[in-house]
Amino acid sequence: MPRVRLTLAYDGTHFAGWQLQAPGFGRTVQGCLEEALARLCAGPVRVHGAGRTDSGVHALAQVAHCDVPESRAGFPWQKALNALLPKDMSVAHAAEVAPDFHARFDAVGKEYRYTLWTDPGSLLPWRRAYVWDVGRYGPLDVAAMDACAALFAGSHDFAAFQNAGTDVKSTVRQMHGAWRLPGTPEQEMVWQFRAEGFLKQMVRNLMGALVAVGRSKVSPQDIRSVLTKGQRSLAPGTAPACGLCLHAVEYASDGRGHKRHLFHQPEAGQG
Amino acid sequence: MPRVRLTLAYDGTHFAGWQLQAPGFGRTVQGCLEEALARLCAGPVRVHGAGRTDSGVHALAQVAHCDVPESRAGFPWQKALNALLPKDMSVAHAAEVAPDFHARFDAVGKEYRYTLWTDPGSLLPWRRAYVWDVGRYGPLDVAAMDACAALFAGSHDFAAFQNAGTDVKSTVRQMHGAWRLPGTPEQEMVWQFRAEGFLKQMVRNLMGALVAVGRSKVSPQDIRSVLTKGQRSLAPGTAPACGLCLHAVEYASDGRGHKRHLFHQPEAGQG
Repeated sequence: MPRVRLTLAYDGTHFAGWQLQAPGFGRTVQGCLEEALARLCAGPVRVHGAGRTDSGVHALAQVAHCDVPESRAGFPWQKALNALLPKDMSVAHAAEVAPDFHARFDAVGKEYRYTLWTDPGSLLPWRRAYVWDVGRYGPLDVAAMDACAALFAGSHDFAAFQNAGTDVKSTVRQMHGAWRLPGTPEQEMVWQFRAEGFLKQMVRNLMGALVAVGRSKVSPQDIRSVLTKGQRSLAPGTAPACGLCLHAVEYASDGRGHKRHLFHQPEAGQG
Repeated sequence: MPRVRLTLAYDGTHFAGWQLQAPGFGRTVQGCLEEALARLCAGPVRVHGAGRTDSGVHALAQVAHCDVPESRAGFPWQKALNALLPKDMSVAHAAEVAPDFHARFDAVGKEYRYTLWTDPGSLLPWRRAYVWDVGRYGPLDVAAMDACAALFAGSHDFAAFQNAGTDVKSTVRQMHGAWRLPGTPEQEMVWQFRAEGFLKQMVRNLMGALVAVGRSKVSPQDIRSVLTKGQRSLAPGTAPACGLCLHAVEYASDGRGHKRHLFHQPEAGQG
């Protein structure tokens, strides 16, 4: 059976996350995608995503794969799926890939972006579903946030930044880093998080810690201590889902056997 | 009675426009605002907007005024209204102004922005309600669009770009100009329209003409001829509401008797 790789954008606002739920337990991205594929393939199709985004989390480039019937080889997947999918999700790219390509297991890195609304004035209505409004807390101590973010880079046991409800073998993750992005709209502050992989709600927990530091509720040294102790209960709260976007998933090859570039280093001025 | 000037942002997607409708004929910005004001003032309050945005049209800075009971002088309008208003609208600024300030009659200029999605790839789900997707039409002839836009600057009879259903005395308007804005996201093209005033759906009709020129359906010379002949039926169609945003309303004074700057000239590189 031909294997197809799909790159998906979605607005997570009205989805109960990526992962398929039992009927009646919420509309999911995977569910909508499998429904559309089932119509195109005249039979059930199982989709495997690179990562399970939470309810309310957005994606610019989630990656998924599925196997389709031989009779559908060469099918115009992007166009056909976009004609069927609901308006809050779309296929940005589709390609037939090697039969051993796996969206989740072959991923060598992920990039998330988290957007803070930092303006003390009122939040723009059309940004509400895409930011965490921290403007009400007053100016953030950005230097302290940067110092804290620098602690996350490298290989660490991120147990203190993982939410309950998973059975991962190890909570050690290799993190490329967390940086503020330059050139964002003046009312917003965008944080980029890159790692080989993330634990459950890890980005939202790291962001929660960064904002607590920015508000001077805790110091970067406190966060260093939390990281060392590995206890979730000592860490600041979880940032809201709506500010988060799965920005990219990286693979070591293009899915057809060709090597690809991995993550670039952060551009100058981002550190 | 104290007069209050309100500056409002709203996401027009789920509004049947600015103007109050008969009960059952749609949720409007004016209606929601009057409802919140009535609660705060314990009695009916009439709101006057600077302009009547259509259903689906957004606003970054619509301006409105209303008279409130003497007992509410000095009330924290912005905070109180934002606590009551629905999430898709917000008060960006509120101030008590001179009793003869009028949001509509005192306006000396308006600025609208219209956003085109020009990427041939799939439209990002969270931009759908804020752009006109013209990417599917292929690359636009931007030089021709710029040449056409230049024709709109100055004082013209814009009868050909006014939709039916108004009783304005004159269809002549002084237009400061229409320009593409630099520095927008690469998939999008933002047009700015500034004039002393606009006719009904004039910006959407001018944008419709510009896109028709960009698609080489008509030439700038054709549009010049349409402008001269003044017949709506000769002009290209109306651009969708969702791409449009009322960006600013300008006044000659600050509403308390102090002169203010009028429009700036467009920045270098915009022409």
